[in-house]
Amino acid sequence: MTTPTTVAHSFARDLVLLSGGMDSSTLLAEAAQTGTARLAVSIDYGQRHVREIAAAVVVAVHYGVELVALDLTGWGSRLTGSALTDPNVEVPHGHYADESMRATVVPNRNATLLSAAAGVAQARGCDRVLTAVHAGDHPIYPDCRPEFIAAIARATELATDGAVTIAAPFTHQTKTDIARLAGKLGVPIALTWSCYEGGDAHCGQCGTCIERREALRDAGVPDPTAYAVVPA
Amino acid sequence: MTTPTTVAHSFARDLVLLSGGMDSSTLLAEAAQTGTARLAVSIDYGQRHVREIAAAVVVAVHYGVELVALDLTGWGSRLTGSALTDPNVEVPHGHYADESMRATVVPNRNATLLSAAAGVAQARGCDRVLTAVHAGDHPIYPDCRPEFIAAIARATELATDGAVTIAAPFTHQTKTDIARLAGKLGVPIALTWSCYEGGDAHCGQCGTCIERREALRDAGVPDPTAYAVVPA
Repeated sequence: MTTPTTVAHSFARDLVLLSGGMDSSTLLAEAAQTGTARLAVSIDYGQRHVREIAAAVVVAVHYGVELVALDLTGWGSRLTGSALTDPNVEVPHGHYADESMRATVVPNRNATLLSAAAGVAQARGCDRVLTAVHAGDHPIYPDCRPEFIAAIARATELATDGAVTIAAPFTHQTKTDIARLAGKLGVPIALTWSCYEGGDAHCGQCGTCIERREALRDAGVPDPTAYAVVPA
Repeated sequence: MTTPTTVAHSFARDLVLLSGGMDSSTLLAEAAQTGTARLAVSIDYGQRHVREIAAAVVVAVHYGVELVALDLTGWGSRLTGSALTDPNVEVPHGHYADESMRATVVPNRNATLLSAAAGVAQARGCDRVLTAVHAGDHPIYPDCRPEFIAAIARATELATDGAVTIAAPFTHQTKTDIARLAGKLGVPIALTWSCYEGGDAHCGQCGTCIERREALRDAGVPDPTAYAVVPA
């Protein structure tokens, strides 16, 4: 396990793509501490767990960073076949690396969300969009892999005449690395939301609940989450 | 002047990003004639000339291609500073290559629209997104240049595990080349909409009205457009 890299200082005005989960909240925490965080953007694309946006609002307030919530539900409603946007597809239970988790892939999600965020960044004078994709996402989600991030960063730089780029500081880190950083930075983990089911409490059984629980345990960071069913 | 390339046949299921203007309507016409057109996508991003979407609907019906209209106004409403999305910024009058036309740049528009369309393409089983950007767009709009198209195509292929790519068959053609092709294919030009002002009739004075008029004239194709003020 390696230590997460520090957010680079060469960029002065960061926009953090904030889902409201533990990973992006930790990224916001680091950018806020470094002094580069200017704006957070949360996107409602019709995800089953839209409740995460309420968490994002609370986390952004915690760090004193302005949050812009974008409504892309007109797009997400067209994405049939994904468990996160199609009410007819069930959320699979298991580990992130499990084949069953492929049902949670949202077609071209990160390119769309990052591009939309980059447009807001340019309009608002931010020069970098930060995303919290990490190594644990790579097996199942092609739009979390380093080569995708490099490609979309290049496309963004070209589209904005160099005004905006995209970076993923956690891309080679595990979720346990991020949990350790969250503990070190004092991230208010209880305020963040992970569960894909999007109920009143974390279900404790979906892939993201299991990963959250395991990462905090392995990092030796207390887990304040009230799970409906405590993951094994 | 070169002849527009024919839409390649190696891809079988095309999604055409259809603004409702002359260029994308001609692209749809070609894909429909080639037999590869499966879906058209039009996007309301809060553009002043949202009227173009009504044109897109009529053009799609003309070619018997299903049209999906996406509502991205929640994104566009955040893009202050552009004449097309900010009601406080006036639409400049002049030629596309004029410096004044920079006011019509929408931050990261094509990356966002193409990525959103690529997600719909993947969900609907299309393997290519076609966009009608052309050589006349290059000076002012960075997200219409060939190097941007190559980069976003690469990002899309990586994000979708090779399921979807992006192509811009008109990228090295002039608008006059496209007008000539429109004439040859019998595109119903009167049904298309270009004017950025978005009034009841084409204003005849904004950059896109002037370019439309000149391209049709130079291509020797009759212009059926009823301009409020006939361009010089």
